Amino acid sequence: MQQTVTSKDNPSIKLFQKLSSNKKYRSEYRMFTLEGLRLIKDAVNENAPLHCIFITEGCMEKADFLPKDVQTIIISDELGKRLAMTEGTQGIFAICRMPENPNISSVIKSSGKYIVLHNLQDPGNMGTIIRTADAMGVDGVIAINCCDIYNPKTIRSTMGSLFRTKLCICGEEEAFTELTSKGITSYASVIDSDAQSLADISFEEGAAVFIGNEGNGLPSETADRCSKKLTIKMNGNVNSLNAATAASIIMWELTK
Amino acid sequence: MQQTVTSKDNPSIKLFQKLSSNKKYRSEYRMFTLEGLRLIKDAVNENAPLHCIFITEGCMEKADFLPKDVQTIIISDELGKRLAMTEGTQGIFAICRMPENPNISSVIKSSGKYIVLHNLQDPGNMGTIIRTADAMGVDGVIAINCCDIYNPKTIRSTMGSLFRTKLCICGEEEAFTELTSKGITSYASVIDSDAQSLADISFEEGAAVFIGNEGNGLPSETADRCSKKLTIKMNGNVNSLNAATAASIIMWELTK
Repeated sequence: MQQTVTSKDNPSIKLFQKLSSNKKYRSEYRMFTLEGLRLIKDAVNENAPLHCIFITEGCMEKADFLPKDVQTIIISDELGKRLAMTEGTQGIFAICRMPENPNISSVIKSSGKYIVLHNLQDPGNMGTIIRTADAMGVDGVIAINCCDIYNPKTIRSTMGSLFRTKLCICGEEEAFTELTSKGITSYASVIDSDAQSLADISFEEGAAVFIGNEGNGLPSETADRCSKKLTIKMNGNVNSLNAATAASIIMWELTK
Repeated sequence: MQQTVTSKDNPSIKLFQKLSSNKKYRSEYRMFTLEGLRLIKDAVNENAPLHCIFITEGCMEKADFLPKDVQTIIISDELGKRLAMTEGTQGIFAICRMPENPNISSVIKSSGKYIVLHNLQDPGNMGTIIRTADAMGVDGVIAINCCDIYNPKTIRSTMGSLFRTKLCICGEEEAFTELTSKGITSYASVIDSDAQSLADISFEEGAAVFIGNEGNGLPSETADRCSKKLTIKMNGNVNSLNAATAASIIMWELTK
């Protein structure tokens, strides 16, 4: 029988806490953290490279999916509460290695459909967009200068879609070069009544739609580099949608 | 020159804090709280029934929209920090009276387009949906057994759309009776590959689409009471979208 870990000074426990709280450590160790039954089950099912799993005794009977080849550490309830990032924790946590960031040229295919996130800063929005991209079957999510996708809040909002979505972090220059070379039309999503209405566009031949920052939208230089501009026609009173909402409606039209 | 309020025991300050923190007090006093320049400016522009405004001296020069007929209380920076519900507060707060909940029969018109929220419990989702409903020009949002729409988190997520959207809180029975009497087709939004695909439905003659709880969806009895069922076709791997995302895509199709 494996001994229950109770000390907050246990090195794996300390590693988990560092990774949860700080992007610097995530980048340095190339690892990130997971919490909750559904998310960790998804990670196991999708063969995510798990480093270790922490589980409280109370949670053991609910976790029938624990892989034999991943180190599983039984922890006390008290330690479980200490690791918890959410209220009403289920008592299961994991450390996962980051996958290699794929090369943009392997992600972009001719006739593919992509969403390009430009300077998105809200972890919840990032996660929701990744979840929706998975649901809609978008061919890839490109992140240019966005917040950390391995932030625990982002991970939580993806609801496991992180392990199924083709994600690529790259620079703006690289993204445009690759899209051009594969003959993909780039669209800037803007708030501008002169832009083409999203409802009127056919995306049959593939497209990459750029979505800008929550507060400021796309910088005009970036919007101007795109081949076309599109807009979601809105009621007179409102000058913006939530970035994740706009992205969701765009992905719906892109893939339907 | 008005005196700056510095005491946390000031009765208006205490009222603000009660209203911010507790639904019970909001229901009892029929008031709720607002924070931030944009939200309070929107409230003023839409003639929301403001009870009073709190403002720090530092914020005064940015607030050129303060109405003369609403009591304005200048507060110390310290008190501003105490009232703040967000990081990086701007130093402006308000108490607003709740509008009367409209009668459902005055909200539902024949050929109208409505979203019906059934047991939604996440304040952020509620707010995002109200914001999107405003942007899309939906004729009304009906809330059945949902979380408090005057929760500060909901208010914040609406980004001022609360003051522009026709909102009605009512019971399920009432809602179905009224929809039937006005000849509006009700749709249950479900995850069921046998349901009609959202992409194939024409909503030209008006509709009311029911959206269910974040975790559990619509109860089957409620779904069965609806005239029709619709679904957002998804990729094999995902069994749900975020409730606000699903509602946004549905409202887009409903009104486009």
